[in-house]
Amino acid sequence: MSMGIPGFRFSGIASGIRESRLDLALAVADAPAVAAGVFTRNLVRAAPVEVAEQRIRSGQAQAILANSGCANACTGHPGLRATLDSTAAVAQALSIRPAQVLPASTGVIGEVLPAERIAEHAAELVAALSPEGHRQFAEAILTTDRFAKVARVPIQGGAAVLGIAKGAGMIHPDVGLDRPHATMLCFLFTDATVERDVLQQALVHAADDTFNSVSVDGDTSTNDVVFALASGAAHGSVNPKALTTALTQVCEELARAMVTDGEGAMRVAQIVVSGLPTAEQARAVARTIATSVLVKTAMHGCDPNWGRIFAAAGRSGVPFDPARASISIGGRTIVRDGLGLGAEAEQRARQVMATASYTIEVALGTGPGEAQYVTCDLGAEYIRINAGYRT
Amino acid sequence: MSMGIPGFRFSGIASGIRESRLDLALAVADAPAVAAGVFTRNLVRAAPVEVAEQRIRSGQAQAILANSGCANACTGHPGLRATLDSTAAVAQALSIRPAQVLPASTGVIGEVLPAERIAEHAAELVAALSPEGHRQFAEAILTTDRFAKVARVPIQGGAAVLGIAKGAGMIHPDVGLDRPHATMLCFLFTDATVERDVLQQALVHAADDTFNSVSVDGDTSTNDVVFALASGAAHGSVNPKALTTALTQVCEELARAMVTDGEGAMRVAQIVVSGLPTAEQARAVARTIATSVLVKTAMHGCDPNWGRIFAAAGRSGVPFDPARASISIGGRTIVRDGLGLGAEAEQRARQVMATASYTIEVALGTGPGEAQYVTCDLGAEYIRINAGYRT
Repeated sequence: MSMGIPGFRFSGIASGIRESRLDLALAVADAPAVAAGVFTRNLVRAAPVEVAEQRIRSGQAQAILANSGCANACTGHPGLRATLDSTAAVAQALSIRPAQVLPASTGVIGEVLPAERIAEHAAELVAALSPEGHRQFAEAILTTDRFAKVARVPIQGGAAVLGIAKGAGMIHPDVGLDRPHATMLCFLFTDATVERDVLQQALVHAADDTFNSVSVDGDTSTNDVVFALASGAAHGSVNPKALTTALTQVCEELARAMVTDGEGAMRVAQIVVSGLPTAEQARAVARTIATSVLVKTAMHGCDPNWGRIFAAAGRSGVPFDPARASISIGGRTIVRDGLGLGAEAEQRARQVMATASYTIEVALGTGPGEAQYVTCDLGAEYIRINAGYRT
Repeated sequence: MSMGIPGFRFSGIASGIRESRLDLALAVADAPAVAAGVFTRNLVRAAPVEVAEQRIRSGQAQAILANSGCANACTGHPGLRATLDSTAAVAQALSIRPAQVLPASTGVIGEVLPAERIAEHAAELVAALSPEGHRQFAEAILTTDRFAKVARVPIQGGAAVLGIAKGAGMIHPDVGLDRPHATMLCFLFTDATVERDVLQQALVHAADDTFNSVSVDGDTSTNDVVFALASGAAHGSVNPKALTTALTQVCEELARAMVTDGEGAMRVAQIVVSGLPTAEQARAVARTIATSVLVKTAMHGCDPNWGRIFAAAGRSGVPFDPARASISIGGRTIVRDGLGLGAEAEQRARQVMATASYTIEVALGTGPGEAQYVTCDLGAEYIRINAGYRT
């Protein structure tokens, strides 16, 4: 993925927030871009989330300033001040207004962002900007991610979407630091020409079907954000449906990369629930299965333990007739009409579960409602990382 | 705990459902007893749960027939038949009607209860009945529990409550068997004289404040039941409030024993949430914290990681002002007015977290609503047990 996207430049540098690695990222549009965003619904929200949400209301932004190593969450007034100061310093170096800069942070919670350090590196960060700098940008926002997450998809009829993300589902602590913390960040850049409302709608739709349908551990962060900027470098208005399709495709690729990169994760499963009256009901069942600790540990052990899947569906709060339920793993049916099909069927399912990626299909009736959720296994490595043994 | 309870006899024998251990339990009242029950709200329910719920509607029962090694869940018509047949066999041996026998099962899901084996052992089970047989009863219903769970509390004004339970929260799989499964069973016996509605109300109240406020892994079983039988051997009507108090005290002791016995659990925390407008809101916050995989792994690592506690509260769906939140661990305050109090405060909290049992107090305002939830840490041993590596 060596191509950038017309109308944007990117950089990523080591500013010393974290020890000897890239930790500060900047994306800049050639001119003010159309901007949309979605933000964590967690009531406890970091300073950069509050500031970005307020600034994006104008429908415009020209830059994104992101850092790893410090979430600047639960830091009160000093934290708010630090976010305002650091975006102001970078705005000055870019000769734009601070309100044009959207902040995003990930890393240690409870510690104030070192705004002075960022101000000292603002000129260097701007000097490093390049149309091909998205690789450095992607590296600089990682915490304990095992790999950078970049995706690029063409929009039917012209233009394209470039997406850059970090995180392993909702949670990705940084073991080396004093206060492990979790965040999902995603930044989408397109050269399409699009109105603000169309971009916002397309983004909400794309995020709902992708990021809001994956889980590593069910814990929602205080810092999660998705921003979308449109430069309009590709002239001629974009088809809204084509834009939504492309955004969704990029988000899906990035969301799946996060689950694959989930702490200690060895396997990814797509939970497909069907046959209910509404898609919302199907999603509630899929979410309950995807976040069940028992289902996730069974995945870890490659155990086609359908009783756990069935029981999770049963406690989801959604009504269905257990006697009409069927469960398949990778197309191998192990439960039909609510009854297990025996050891041979399970042995076939077990073979599928030994692979890196598979589907778990749960059919609960004949209704049209269907939904999907992507989850990963829960293993001892996850515990090792998250139990917070500090070095 | 060597005392039984007037008006009841108990037995526990090895019937061969499981290999060379007690697996079949019987409790019998000298005459039909007043009976109440609460049942799993999971939509997927085992045959014994359906049968017991129907039978208990009469307000009377004379016996409880419980087994480990087979949950008889997701077994359709043959499973229902097996529950009816096995209770009929034991009823015959007792010379009572089958409708007077309440069944309960725990163990392998998806396999039909071996009714013939139980019928073959019915005479032996009845012959073993004794007023002091509750120890054998308690042993016979265990699956991977590390210890039997029995509690006895006097009722103010006379009479007493004896409680026998199994389980480690909602989940307790049996690793040695082909289909690990999870169940909480609790049987309460009192010699009090009490009307059916009073007993049922007291039971609902007691279960809500205790069993419904503990969690090992958030997964609700298909087989969970709590039965209460009152023999009336202690004459003179019981005070309803005194009965509720005693039932609650027994259930609390047993519920805490389940969490302490949670798979791989090393530490137990009582989450106390206060300061919200209603107790229901406080309970929703406490439940979210108690089931957070991140909070539970931090407990495992003795890490006073208040950001995870704070973030879990924030995603609970309950509104509060983060700037007024405070968090203490074992009385050591680490967050005040939404801000961390620093490394020294955390060091004090860390010492508390190295002990086996402590409280996590989360105050979110000045309202009267308060609630508690008991949870345990989540460690690698839990994963080892539940990933289902089979021998």
